[in-house]
Amino acid sequence: MVEPLGEFGRIERFFRPLTAGFPGAFALTDDAAVIDVPAGAELVVTTDAVLAGVHFLPGDPPEDVARKALRVNLSDLAAKGAQPLAYTLTLAIGGDIPDAWVERFASGLAADQALYGIALAGGDSVSTPGPVTVSITAMGLVASGKMVRRSGARAGDTVFVTGTIGDSALGLAVLMRRLVVSPDDEAMLTARYRLPQPRSSLASAISTHAHAAIDISDGLAADFGHLCRASGVSGEILLPRIPLSPAARRVLEADPARLSSILAGGDDYEILFTAPPESAAALAEAALCQGVALTGIGHIEAGEARSRIIGASGLPVRLDRLGWTHA
Amino acid sequence: MVEPLGEFGRIERFFRPLTAGFPGAFALTDDAAVIDVPAGAELVVTTDAVLAGVHFLPGDPPEDVARKALRVNLSDLAAKGAQPLAYTLTLAIGGDIPDAWVERFASGLAADQALYGIALAGGDSVSTPGPVTVSITAMGLVASGKMVRRSGARAGDTVFVTGTIGDSALGLAVLMRRLVVSPDDEAMLTARYRLPQPRSSLASAISTHAHAAIDISDGLAADFGHLCRASGVSGEILLPRIPLSPAARRVLEADPARLSSILAGGDDYEILFTAPPESAAALAEAALCQGVALTGIGHIEAGEARSRIIGASGLPVRLDRLGWTHA
Repeated sequence: MVEPLGEFGRIERFFRPLTAGFPGAFALTDDAAVIDVPAGAELVVTTDAVLAGVHFLPGDPPEDVARKALRVNLSDLAAKGAQPLAYTLTLAIGGDIPDAWVERFASGLAADQALYGIALAGGDSVSTPGPVTVSITAMGLVASGKMVRRSGARAGDTVFVTGTIGDSALGLAVLMRRLVVSPDDEAMLTARYRLPQPRSSLASAISTHAHAAIDISDGLAADFGHLCRASGVSGEILLPRIPLSPAARRVLEADPARLSSILAGGDDYEILFTAPPESAAALAEAALCQGVALTGIGHIEAGEARSRIIGASGLPVRLDRLGWTHA
Repeated sequence: MVEPLGEFGRIERFFRPLTAGFPGAFALTDDAAVIDVPAGAELVVTTDAVLAGVHFLPGDPPEDVARKALRVNLSDLAAKGAQPLAYTLTLAIGGDIPDAWVERFASGLAADQALYGIALAGGDSVSTPGPVTVSITAMGLVASGKMVRRSGARAGDTVFVTGTIGDSALGLAVLMRRLVVSPDDEAMLTARYRLPQPRSSLASAISTHAHAAIDISDGLAADFGHLCRASGVSGEILLPRIPLSPAARRVLEADPARLSSILAGGDDYEILFTAPPESAAALAEAALCQGVALTGIGHIEAGEARSRIIGASGLPVRLDRLGWTHA
C-alpha cells in the first residue's frame, strides 16, 4: 500500500517539474510567479475551462483531459498571433481521485508543454464533490500593438481557415452513439474531439498577414458571424470550399442533414482569419512548411455586418430553428 | 416573467461593464486580452480558486463570494509588493442559478474593483452540476526584479505581521456552530471569515522595505515555517506579541485551547514579512497612513531553517497531533 501524496506532495511530485525552464515560476515555492515581458512585446492572456460531462467525457484518459484543457487555450493564443509563454492551472477534482490519475494528467501537460513550448507558471488545486474542472489561463507574446483582433477584417480580404471543419462535432456524435461510422473514421473523428490541434505553428504567419482572426469554438458559421460583426463588414464563405476530412465527407454523403453539425457543432479549434489576397502565396508557403492545411473559403465585402455561407447552388445556406439547412 | 439572459447575455450585461477602464480587455469581445507591461516593470501572476462548501458557505451572499474570490488573489499580490492591474475569471455555476445571483456576484466584483484598482480582463463561464467554483488569475505590477520573495529573509530581520491573526478561523468556527460568542463578536469574526482584507495599500511599502513576505493562508505558524525554510534561516515569533482582535482575545481567555485555531486555522490573508530593523519607523509610518495595523512579532536568526513560536514562559509553543499546545 502506497501512502497517498496529499496536495503538497502532488504539487511537488507532479506539478513542480512542469515549471522547468521557466524561472519566474520559482518552482511553485512562492505565492506568485513573475512574467518578464520583453520591451516591444505585449502579453496576450486567455482563460478557458473544461468540465467533465461538458467538454470531455468523465472516462476520458487523464492525459487527454489535460491536453484538451491546455490546447483550447493555445488555440486562442494562435488565433491572436501570439507565441505561447506560460500558463496557470486550477485543477478541481474529487477527493477520491488517486495520485495515479493526477500523475497521468501531469504527464499529458508535460507532453504538450514540450510540443508547444509553454511552461507552468503557477496554479491552485481544490477538492470538489463536483465533476473534474480544469481552468487554464494561458499567456503568450506578440509584438506591441500586433495582437490580431476579431475586428480588423477589411473589404477585399480573403477568408482563410486552417485544417478541416466539423470533425470534432461528428466525433462527439459518435461518442454519444448518435452517429455510426467505420472503425477508421471513428478513430479519426473521436481523436479530433478529444484532442484539438492548436495551430500555434502558424501564429507568426497570422501575426504578419492577418487583418482579423478568431478560433473556431462555437462553430464555423457562428464564429464567422462574430468576426464580421466585430469588424463591421459583410462576408461570404463558399460552402463547397469548406475543407472537410475524408471521414466528414463520407458522413455528409450518407446524410446531408449532418451539415448542421459540421457548420454549427463547434469545438473545431481551427483558425478562421482574413488577409489581403496578396498575402495568399506567403500564407500558403508558411502553411506548407508547417504541415498545416490552409484553405481560402470566402471573401469580405464592405457594407453592413452580415455573414453568409453560400451553397453550391449559389443560394445562401440558412439557419432555422432546427439547425442548418440548405435554402 | 423575465426571459433568462443566457451565457452571452450575462457576459454582456453583467461582466462587460467590469472591463471599463481597461482597454486591453476589448470589452470581452475578442478571444483574448492584451496586457501592456511598462518598461522597467514585471508582471506578478497568481491563481487561487474558491469553492462552495470549502472556502465559503453555499448560502453566502453572492457579492461576498465574488469579493472573497478576488481578495484572496489580491492578498497574494500585496504580499509580493505588486500593484493590482487586471484579472481573469472562471465562474462555474449550476444551470439553475438565476440571473439575479450572477448580477449580485458581478456587483461584488465591481465594488472591489473600485476599492483595489483592478479590472476584469477576460474569463470563461461554465455550467456545472457541482458546487459554485470561482477561479481567478490576478496580475499586478512590480518594478523589474523587485517581487518580494518568500526566500529573502536575512539574519537580523524583524518579523512583521499586518492586521490581527485568527479572526477568520474563529469566524468559521462560529458559522459551523462549534463556537459561541457574543452577537457583536460573532458579527466581527464571521465578517473576517467572509471577507478578507487584502493589504494592497501596503504593497508599495513592502516592496520598498521587505526582504521576504508571504500571505497567511495556511495559518501563521505554517506560513512562518514556509518563509523560514524558503529563506534557509531560523526565526522566532513571540506569542505575546501576536496581534489579536478584542474578540479573539475574549475567545482565548474563555478557552486557551482555541490558540490552535488562531495559530493554525489559516485564511487570515494578512501579510507576514521580514525587514531590517532600521526600516521599522518607515514601515510604521506607512501603516499608520494607510490605517493598517502593523506589529513587530519576532526576529530572524542565522542557522538551519527552523521556525518557532515562543510563549510567555520563554518556552516554544509546540504542535502535537491534537493541535497547538503550550509546551
